Parts: sequence; structure tokens; C-alpha cells
Amino acid sequence: MPNGPDLDALFNPRAIAVVGASATPGRVGNLVFEGLIASGRTLYPVHPGEGTIHGHAAVREVDALPDGVDLAVITVAAERAVDAAEACARRGIPFLIVVAGGFGETGAAGKALEARLAAIPERFGSRILGPNTLGIYLPHAGIDTLFVEHAADALAGGGGVAFVAQSGSVGVEALSLASNIGFGLRAFVGLGNKCDLDELDFLGHFAADDATACLGLYVENFERGRAFLEAAARVSRRKPVVVLKAGHTDAGAAAVSSHTGQLAGADRVVDGAFRQFGIQRAFDDEELCDATRTLAALPPASGSRVAIVTPAGAYGVMGADHVETPARRGRISMATLTEATRERIRAVTPDFAAVGNPVDLTAVADDSMFAAALDALLEDDGVDIILVAAFFAPPGVTDGLVGVVAERVRRGLKPIVAFTEYGPKTDAYLRRLYEAGVIGFPSVGRAVRAARFLVERAERRRALGGPS
Amino acid sequence: MPNGPDLDALFNPRAIAVVGASATPGRVGNLVFEGLIASGRTLYPVHPGEGTIHGHAAVREVDALPDGVDLAVITVAAERAVDAAEACARRGIPFLIVVAGGFGETGAAGKALEARLAAIPERFGSRILGPNTLGIYLPHAGIDTLFVEHAADALAGGGGVAFVAQSGSVGVEALSLASNIGFGLRAFVGLGNKCDLDELDFLGHFAADDATACLGLYVENFERGRAFLEAAARVSRRKPVVVLKAGHTDAGAAAVSSHTGQLAGADRVVDGAFRQFGIQRAFDDEELCDATRTLAALPPASGSRVAIVTPAGAYGVMGADHVETPARRGRISMATLTEATRERIRAVTPDFAAVGNPVDLTAVADDSMFAAALDALLEDDGVDIILVAAFFAPPGVTDGLVGVVAERVRRGLKPIVAFTEYGPKTDAYLRRLYEAGVIGFPSVGRAVRAARFLVERAERRRALGGPS
Repeated sequence: MPNGPDLDALFNPRAIAVVGASATPGRVGNLVFEGLIASGRTLYPVHPGEGTIHGHAAVREVDALPDGVDLAVITVAAERAVDAAEACARRGIPFLIVVAGGFGETGAAGKALEARLAAIPERFGSRILGPNTLGIYLPHAGIDTLFVEHAADALAGGGGVAFVAQSGSVGVEALSLASNIGFGLRAFVGLGNKCDLDELDFLGHFAADDATACLGLYVENFERGRAFLEAAARVSRRKPVVVLKAGHTDAGAAAVSSHTGQLAGADRVVDGAFRQFGIQRAFDDEELCDATRTLAALPPASGSRVAIVTPAGAYGVMGADHVETPARRGRISMATLTEATRERIRAVTPDFAAVGNPVDLTAVADDSMFAAALDALLEDDGVDIILVAAFFAPPGVTDGLVGVVAERVRRGLKPIVAFTEYGPKTDAYLRRLYEAGVIGFPSVGRAVRAARFLVERAERRRALGGPS
Repeated sequence: MPNGPDLDALFNPRAIAVVGASATPGRVGNLVFEGLIASGRTLYPVHPGEGTIHGHAAVREVDALPDGVDLAVITVAAERAVDAAEACARRGIPFLIVVAGGFGETGAAGKALEARLAAIPERFGSRILGPNTLGIYLPHAGIDTLFVEHAADALAGGGGVAFVAQSGSVGVEALSLASNIGFGLRAFVGLGNKCDLDELDFLGHFAADDATACLGLYVENFERGRAFLEAAARVSRRKPVVVLKAGHTDAGAAAVSSHTGQLAGADRVVDGAFRQFGIQRAFDDEELCDATRTLAALPPASGSRVAIVTPAGAYGVMGADHVETPARRGRISMATLTEATRERIRAVTPDFAAVGNPVDLTAVADDSMFAAALDALLEDDGVDIILVAAFFAPPGVTDGLVGVVAERVRRGLKPIVAFTEYGPKTDAYLRRLYEAGVIGFPSVGRAVRAARFLVERAERRRALGGPS
């Protein structure tokens, strides 16, 4: 696996100092401190004037911090943040998160400030995340420095996606939106301006983290492009790596240039390199989230033949159309079911049901028909991926359908992707599916796209000579 | 405009009879009756055994109905429904909605039953919607025969989209999903098995309905294809016509064949014909809803040059990428802003903001910066369509941003499409935007696609020689 800095203490710190911690609701220093309480770690608020903050005695200055602090989150504004970071580094704290903006992204004065930050690792050995970053969020550990509103742990956590984002807004908005339907996050990292730690460092960390099943990265400019690609190729033999490299058209690249002050790589070069080095590419935040939550949770597809089960014929038709329409990635096709499979489905469905592919159970569908159809498709060697329209509108379908699908997902024989549309209750049903272990989407198009990501994943791994 | 049956009494009936109306909660005959109470029309429940239903005295049989009933909704099961329909027709009721399934879609016996229904118009003059249909839903009139859960009037209504769906599930699920973020429905019609009234009849009706601004149709098979196309070409000179013709790939077409017992038209023929006759094509229900809610609400685009305003640079980048990536429809490009426009935006934004296109207001954005940027773009002749990232996360952005955008939408100078991502609150913010008159989407990709639909609309109208 790639070698890189040992980041274990950043993600599993013994004690955490919050420089600029505040008792005033709404302040960044308050939000950050509050977000760390659930961690159960030893916390030190650092503030010259306050007595206690959320019951923790404030330390008046960085120099007065006791030993054993592995992480300092610096919440004060830019200029003071640099002073504080230098003080923390001198104090021997190995990891610093600098949340303030007002650095390189704001012009010459900011660039000079950022240069002082960037000098710290070499001068003192401390490693820096940021500046201009939301920091880190680890739902499983109750560590959360994100000082903006985002999804609840229950919806965001519990899974294997390591999500690394250069842009805080993309990170948080995508995280929150994905979490509406259950995301399965292992860790979130906001890279910010990357004055020190960058995407390659975190790629190496999460590659070695057994609880990480899939990496998703939003990157605008690569600091060490060649090394990143080579590392990604090693990682993606074992774990999917999905990258949203914004700026793939000329106009997009020009936009990146104004946004980050960097030149985006020529897009076609990026595209070819990603393919060669085993990276799957996403083109917006929805794709990045959809891909990672799918790839982290589901077994690989052993082929590209898709079967669809639905109680609403029209969704079978639209699904088949989406499957057969050429798309940007993952060539897939509708499976041809064996006569044995058709017979098994015919035996439990009315005469007017369609037992081809898509399997249309019709509006008389009930939970047991779904179960029988899914079982038949799981045992049909001509089917590699199953899409199921988990629609709860037919009178015979109960909430038990969630369990019917979940049980078959648990067997792990083939990837099963659900989709459901149920008006205002759509997200609630998708969450219930997710909590039961079923990856689902609110539209047939996104479910088919998820199937493409699974097939593309298998292609990438085969090309790299990884396990198939 | 196309001539066809006069359907006014179907959509504006003086009195309505519900055959099989029931006082038992959950029964179709109960749900249908309840859904008509808000209409304020004279209602006659028809039931041999019940006394009163929701305070309305039941009529024991169809023959006992008084004069003046323009519409009978027949909620009893298939065989009895045919008898009831014949009785209603003999009684002289001009419009019948037959909701029961169990007709042509279920095999030979059902086909025979359906043939009896299909004979009614010629024998008695009554016109039939269905069978196997959810019927009609007119939020503005409180008329709602949809007996399955769907979106509330407040979210579904208040607009100019006439939505006609051959599949009840597509109709309701799409309607409900679209309504989560505000749909703007004028009318919903479920075509069902089309034993009599079909898509062409409703095309003609809504073409002549001044309150209908856009037609959206989900059709699996066309009863009278050539006539439909010719009528659509006449309609689309004045109003957008968007059609989802499922089954456009071979596999999709095969699925339609099992689903409806009809052969789907060869896809390429459909595609070319749609273009020639001014129809815009959608490929799934999400597209159909996105397209119609956009086209019904926004002014035509006078060109294809898009500007993007965002407080989050990354979304400008992704948006520019989506704009510049070739897609299935509506070739668009990023606008080049004039120096005057750039100066105007520069005057109200910090130095580190990007005043090219996309306009990146950065995280220091506030309502007034959005206002100034939108005003500048509205007055820049090089900009045809504006996309605005209505993100409420930046500290300087307040709920007042909704009004800022809405005011500029109201001027009607250029189409303005919003998008917002705000975690679990995304839909709530989209509803607030919608209620203020702003069409918004929960992802940048869907907002860009909406821009493509606007440009495609202008192309279609120009090709037909309609007003430009």
C-alpha cells in the first residue's frame, strides 16, 4: 500500500485542543467544540478570557496545554490562526486543523499568511489540515469539527465511504443530500487550501483503513498528480476509488482557475489517466455520492447483464430504456432469463404478469411475489445485477418488502439495487431500506446509473489485475 | 387548433355520480367520493345498500339518478363496472370514468369485457375515460378521483402543466415526486387502457385551455399516431408539448409489448417524428416533470448562452462542466460576460470573487451581491439564461434571497433557474422558492438540464415557425 504520513492520531486523538473555543452559541469556536463532546476524548478549550466552556475548564493559552494533545483545532481568524498554529506546533502537537478562510484564496496578503502556515511542517514537524477547511467528521467516533449544519450521524454514518473534499460546500452539501437517504460514511475530510496534507496523504490513510470500503474524492487541482495516480492504481486493486475532478470542459477548467488560482489539468488527459490508473470518474456531487454509497455497500458485479423486477410496468420499460441507452460509463444490457427462471416466476404470478425481463409483477404484486422473483433471478446464471422497484403503493405490498429485499441483499450473491418513488414519503422509504442494508435511489435513472458504476468497478479491477 | 370531442363537461361537470361510492374508509369508492367533496359540485353516491355517504343521500341505482349528471365515476370491479357503464350511458350521462382494472391488460376474458365498454360511445354517445385508470385530478377545482395517496393540492397545483399519463403509477409517482418541490399542475389525466378517449383527445382539449401553459404526456402506444403528431405540431407553435414515449430502445420496446399488449413504434422513427412535429422528448418521469414544470413557468430563451451565479465556486465549476458537455438535447454554452457586466459585479464583491462566468460570489456572498449580479446578468445582452445557486449556507445569505431571485424572475426578461442543496432542508427551500415563483432543482445537473429544455423549446418553435 502507499506509504505516507501516519495519520492515525489525527483520526484517533487522545486529547483535542480547540483554540478559540467559545461558550457563545453560533460562533465557530462554539460549534466546533460542541461537535467534539460526543467523542468522549479529553477536550481542552483554549481561550484567554473564558472560565469554562460546556463544563470544560478553559486553558488560557496554547503554551499552557498539558502533554498528550494529538490534535488542535484552530477556530480563530486567519492572522491569529497562524500565530496559534505556530504556538501549537512549538508545543509539540502533531496535528493541526486550521478552519479559517482568508488565506491563499483571497489574494496576495492571504498567500503570504498561508506561506507561514505551509512552513510549519518542516520547521516543527506538525502536520496541517487546511486552512479554509471544515475539518473532519467521523460519525463512528463522535468527532465532528464541521461548523455548518449537516446531516445527523444516524443518516450519515455507519458505512464504509471515506469522503475527501477540496471544497467545503461540495463536501457538506453532498454529504447532507446523500445522507437524506442514508450515506454510510466512514469519514469526511475537508481538504481546504491544502497547505500541507493533501488528497494523496488521505488516499494512503484510507487505503490502509480496514473499515473503509470505498474512497470518494472531490478534487479541483492535484498537488502531486503522478504520485496520486500511482497510489490510486494500487488502492483500487482492493477498493474502489471514485474521483470528481471538476473542470473537465474548457469552461469548467477556466472556472476552476478563477476559483482556486490553479490551472486545471487538460481534461482528456485526466480522463485517460483515471481509466488507466483504475479510478472511476464522477462528474458532479450527486454522481460522486451515488457511486460511493453503492460501491461501498454492494458486492462486485460478475458481469453486465441487468434484470429488473417491478410492480409497475412503466418503470420496467423506463429502466430497460436506461439500461440499453449508451451512457458515459459501464456498458450494461438487459439479461435474457432462462426458461426455468420464467417458469418459477410464472408459478407465483397472475397470467397477465410479464415474466420476461423486466419482470412485471403488476399491481397485484405482493411481498411473496417479490421474494420469489428475486430468488429466481439470484439463481439465474444469466443475471449479474438486479434492480428492484420497491414500490409500496400496490395493495398487496407491505412494509415487509423492505425485509424481503434486505434478506436477499445480505446473501451477497449479486448486487441488488432498489429504487422507489412514493411522493413525499420517498426519502423516508429510502432511509428504511438503507437502515435494513438496501441501497436505494429515488429514481429509476439513478438506480441504473448505480448499476453502471458497479460494472465499471469490475472493469477497472480486471484491468488492474485485482481479484475478480 | 385541433378539433376533437368537447371535454368541457368532463373537467367542469355540474353534477357527479359515484357508482359504488362507499362509507367504508379505505375502499376505492370511499376514496373517490371523498376526493370530490372539495369540488362543491352536486354529488350523487350510487349504492344499493347504503343510506348516506359523507352526508349525501345515496341513490339506489343508476336509473334513479336525476338529470344534470355530467360525469359518472364508476368504482366497482370490472364486470359490474361494464354493467354500470352501460346503465350510465343509457341514462344519458355524457362522461364515464371507469377505474377498475381487470380488462384488456389481463387476457382474453378481460379483452371481451373491454370490448363491451368500447362499444358504448357509438351505441349511446357517452365518452369513456379508462378503464384501468386513476381518472382525473384538477387541483384548482377540487376534483380528484385519484384513489391512491398523492401530493397535497398546495404542492401539486397552482400552475399550468397538463399532465396526461397512460400509466397510473408513472402518473402518480411522478406527480408526487415533482410536487415535493412544487409542480404547478393544471390537470392530471390517467388514460388507462384508452378504450375510448386517448392522448389525442386530451391534447386537443388542453391546447384550447387558456390556463394550460405546457402539456406533458406519458404514452406507451399511440392510438392515432399520425393525427397526434399533426395536432402536436399545431399545438406546439403556441405551447410546449413534452412526451415520454417509453420503450425507445429495443429492450424497452419489448417491455412495452408485454406491459400493454401493443407493439411500440420503432424508436428512431419516433425520435425523428417528434423533432419534426415540434414535440420535446423526455426519457423518464423525472425528465418529464422537470421539463414541464420549467417550460410552463419560464419565458422562452432567446439564445443558448448560460450564465451561472454561485456563492460556492465548486458548483460554478460543475455547472460549467454540465453546460459544456454535449447532451441529448439543447446545445448550450457558457456566456462571455461584457466588461461592463464584470465591472458591475466587481463593484459589489470582494477582490477574490470571480467575476467571469461562472460568477463566484464566494462564501462572503450576501443577498445584495446576488441581487447586483443577477441585475447585471439580466442586462447583459450576451446572456440568455441564468442559473443561480440559491445556497443559504453562507452567513451573509438570508431567507431574503428567495425574494431577491423571485423579483427578478417576475420581470420575465430571461429565464432564471435556481438550484439549491441544503441537506435535509433542500426540498423545503425548493418549495419556498417555488411558492415565490422560482423554479428550482435539488442538483446542478438538473438545473442545467432545465436550461437545455428551454433552449430546445425555442429551437422547436422556430422550426415550426411559431412566435419567437
